[in-house]
Amino acid sequence: MLRQASTILSIRASRRGLREITHDVLEFVNESGMAEGLLTLFCRHTSASLLIQENAAPAAQRDLELYFERIAPENGPYEHDDEGPDDMPAHLRTALTATQLSIPVRDGKPVLGTWQGIFLFEHRRNTPEREIALHLIGE
Amino acid sequence: MLRQASTILSIRASRRGLREITHDVLEFVNESGMAEGLLTLFCRHTSASLLIQENAAPAAQRDLELYFERIAPENGPYEHDDEGPDDMPAHLRTALTATQLSIPVRDGKPVLGTWQGIFLFEHRRNTPEREIALHLIGE
Amino acid sequence: MLRQASTILSIRASRRGLREITHDVLEFVNESGMAEGLLTLFCRHTSASLLIQENAAPAAQRDLELYFERIAPENGPYEHDDEGPDDMPAHLRTALTATQLSIPVRDGKPVLGTWQGIFLFEHRRNTPEREIALHLIGE
Repeated sequence: MLRQASTILSIRASRRGLREITHDVLEFVNESGMAEGLLTLFCRHTSASLLIQENAAPAAQRDLELYFERIAPENGPYEHDDEGPDDMPAHLRTALTATQLSIPVRDGKPVLGTWQGIFLFEHRRNTPEREIALHLIGE
Repeated sequence: MLRQASTILSIRASRRGLREITHDVLEFVNESGMAEGLLTLFCRHTSASLLIQENAAPAAQRDLELYFERIAPENGPYEHDDEGPDDMPAHLRTALTATQLSIPVRDGKPVLGTWQGIFLFEHRRNTPEREIALHLIGE
Repeated sequence: MLRQASTILSIRASRRGLREITHDVLEFVNESGMAEGLLTLFCRHTSASLLIQENAAPAAQRDLELYFERIAPENGPYEHDDEGPDDMPAHLRTALTATQLSIPVRDGKPVLGTWQGIFLFEHRRNTPEREIALHLIGE
């Protein structure tokens, strides 16, 4: 019998950049007791995003953070800077990555590949607490 | 008892750039009568896209539009220009943003954050009518 | 009565770049026998991605491939190059496009627009076999 489960995950990154949240997500799926379904993560912010990326190589994560600093830099020709120089770049980096991810669940686990981790991508320097809505439909 | 609802939203932007469609989406969810579920938006085009962004600051929206004009400019070295100089940049801007968004629904509403709005991102100058498929599964 | 279907699609691109997989996806939906639902594709890799794009103009596909080679080039200032010069650009191009796509299904078919095709975007030169998880919930 199909059913749903949902929660809101509250997370504060320790610094700007990638923070892995795979463990928290697996825990939610595990506690739901569902074996097959569709898991959805939704980031409730416009200056932080979600990313599935390489979970093993710290150098790849550093390169990825630096890349987004280069293509959406702090010193761009922005009109909007209400909250400082990292305000508008945060919106741009969010637009270029994902606000939402859905992952099929099989045998009680999201079907992540061996090298895939789920990351919160924090784009602000002051690292506010972030809310990620989790939803699972299945059985 | 889980069930589904779906519709096709037809929208024409008044100009190239961001047009908020949050209200239309909320209306669909409201009319479905569902309290908990998963909402999906799917843009049926390759030269327009979807974006969740800052809903309060017009300057942030202008910066965002100008940013995508800079990183996927009209005067690029493109081979494909069947429909004019805004043809290929439209495909690139679509590839860099989202064709689809899924948002969990709780208490009868998508769990958008305070500052999040749902936008159609129109990339063509002639702003054709656009179709966005909406789907909701829940109860 | 709502139910689920899922499978893993194994695909090897013949070269780096876009390979259309619309046909394989339609086949899965067709075999499920479901008329209404939500289809999800999830790419189990961090150096290949998914994209919905123009299915008719080969020039648009070439422009798109060249564009991503320009904005995430092989000769960038990367620290991570464990697997060669196409290693880090592959992660960046994956981050800029989609790891997952969900598409509503109506009348037994995903609601793709006339010009939309579903593509695997292979970012590695050695084109390893790729796994795409497919999931369908509906009836």
